[in-house]
Amino acid sequence: MDGTGTCRTIWWDGDAVAVLDQTCLPDEVVIVLWRTVQDAARGIETMQVRGAPLIGVAASHGIALALGADPTDEGLDAALSRLAATRPTAVNLRWALNRCATHLGPLAPAERGVAARCLATRLADEDAAVGRALAEAGLPLLAPRTPDQPVHVMTHCNAGRLAAVAWGTALAPIYLAHDQGRPVHVWVSETRPRNQGAALTAWELAEAGVPHTVIADNGAGHALSTGLVDVCLVGADRVAANGDVVNKVGTYLKALAARDSGVPFYVVAPVSTVDHDTPDGAAVPIEERDVGELIALAGRRLTPAGTAARNWAFDVTPARLISGIVTERGIVSADPAGISRLR
Amino acid sequence: MDGTGTCRTIWWDGDAVAVLDQTCLPDEVVIVLWRTVQDAARGIETMQVRGAPLIGVAASHGIALALGADPTDEGLDAALSRLAATRPTAVNLRWALNRCATHLGPLAPAERGVAARCLATRLADEDAAVGRALAEAGLPLLAPRTPDQPVHVMTHCNAGRLAAVAWGTALAPIYLAHDQGRPVHVWVSETRPRNQGAALTAWELAEAGVPHTVIADNGAGHALSTGLVDVCLVGADRVAANGDVVNKVGTYLKALAARDSGVPFYVVAPVSTVDHDTPDGAAVPIEERDVGELIALAGRRLTPAGTAARNWAFDVTPARLISGIVTERGIVSADPAGISRLR
Repeated sequence: MDGTGTCRTIWWDGDAVAVLDQTCLPDEVVIVLWRTVQDAARGIETMQVRGAPLIGVAASHGIALALGADPTDEGLDAALSRLAATRPTAVNLRWALNRCATHLGPLAPAERGVAARCLATRLADEDAAVGRALAEAGLPLLAPRTPDQPVHVMTHCNAGRLAAVAWGTALAPIYLAHDQGRPVHVWVSETRPRNQGAALTAWELAEAGVPHTVIADNGAGHALSTGLVDVCLVGADRVAANGDVVNKVGTYLKALAARDSGVPFYVVAPVSTVDHDTPDGAAVPIEERDVGELIALAGRRLTPAGTAARNWAFDVTPARLISGIVTERGIVSADPAGISRLR
Repeated sequence: MDGTGTCRTIWWDGDAVAVLDQTCLPDEVVIVLWRTVQDAARGIETMQVRGAPLIGVAASHGIALALGADPTDEGLDAALSRLAATRPTAVNLRWALNRCATHLGPLAPAERGVAARCLATRLADEDAAVGRALAEAGLPLLAPRTPDQPVHVMTHCNAGRLAAVAWGTALAPIYLAHDQGRPVHVWVSETRPRNQGAALTAWELAEAGVPHTVIADNGAGHALSTGLVDVCLVGADRVAANGDVVNKVGTYLKALAARDSGVPFYVVAPVSTVDHDTPDGAAVPIEERDVGELIALAGRRLTPAGTAARNWAFDVTPARLISGIVTERGIVSADPAGISRLR
């Protein structure tokens, strides 16, 4: 597998939707089949698939599964509601479901099954094309300090091809640079509590042959302040109208350290991640997930029995800390003027 | 057990040194006996005991074990060298060994065994007294916003009684406030990669009955930026002459988020942690530990096989981010003038 779009994270296998089960990585490559909308909804909730772009595409596939079984108005409404309730923070989910509702709602029920499957496939194709466009748009940020020195990129969580259909977002420019033979090295923060950096980003970079080094989330400040990082590239779950970015919890801390260390900090996200109706980051609901993700690992308790915990999945990075937002339409400033260019 | 000094982390058991093995917490309370200087050195290296103050006191006990077996000049020199090589960053280790060398070196070999044991016990007693003084000095920082609301304190790693002989450093004022019936709640960051927050701080706060909540290190920014924290209290492994503080990796990120959120950020440390000979944080050697601490947990690999990693144990928090340094002599400013008052 590589990161360049030939290998996808979601596809049709007969009447089922096949996905790479990310909860099994990096230990095993497991393909699961979703046969019902309930399978899709549970798969999104349990993070078999995750990453804002992929969540949206996966939801559209869930709609197609639903309408294959029940193409009535009631069937469509129930599927839209069920899938909308899976994850609260990423706006791509609502964006994709809105496209499904707008496109499929007016059709006669008899036409909806085939149309929904075509739409899901089209959204997947679009996402792969967007990933390629993000790669092109972000490539200039990876200019090496000297021609034979690698550019050192820090990322957070997983914003690679596993977070999308192909290419990914923050990792897309890295894959393109690597494909062009430019030396690049990625600092991968482990991304507690679910370890998407250590488990997923390290896995997909290794598959693609991109040099990388895993660090604790706590180590990001030391790496940035001691000159080990040239640029930070992260993804986004929602970009607000003022340029605030909601992304995996811990992004804000990296942005602070990047600013304090004079390192550029870019967000790479498709236009579908922008929510013009959300005025700022404070208006975004921050998902709290089960504390079991934090206080236990592989059945081993990390805290004393009965310890209270909080497990926020996202945080808000204020626009003022963001050097720019890389989209498939180019790089815009993280401010109201820049974001309004993406309408 | 409680945090108030009646229960200690290191003591004499006949001719052996007994310590609470912190690598077994929070699952089991295991007491190990050190019978030789090699036991003590390995115990410090493997972090059976850790925390800057306790490392220093433990080393003095190691010297006593060494001189009980071989009180010659060669025996003393070998023990000092062996123990000095265990951990590079905490200055308390060198401070304690210097006290041992200064006090024991001039004595006749026949006198050294008993004198070394007395000195080790004295250093332990002093540390407990210093912890109590730190508690008194830091207590005014824990004034509640309203009388019946708890004050919410964020800490990092373990700077409690497990990091010292009793009381601890950053947690000492919290224990005193709790003992006085003032409501206090502690946000405990898990502190990857060794999870000292989740495993040790949560354990000792639970033992003492202090309310607390564990969060991922990544969650600290969200907690600070959303008003959930009144004050940050952390320990230190070394305070430089300009007020820079070297402490557990990740401290710098919390200090940045505290500053960005308008939350006071205090370092609580005994005067023995101040190194007037170190001009600034950049001059402090940052220990890199085995990457196995980061990429595996309880025998389970967290990354793909063969993944490269870096595992810095500490980072530098610049003086400009620190509201003050709480010592047993009172609170001083984190700048050359403040630090010079601690000579």
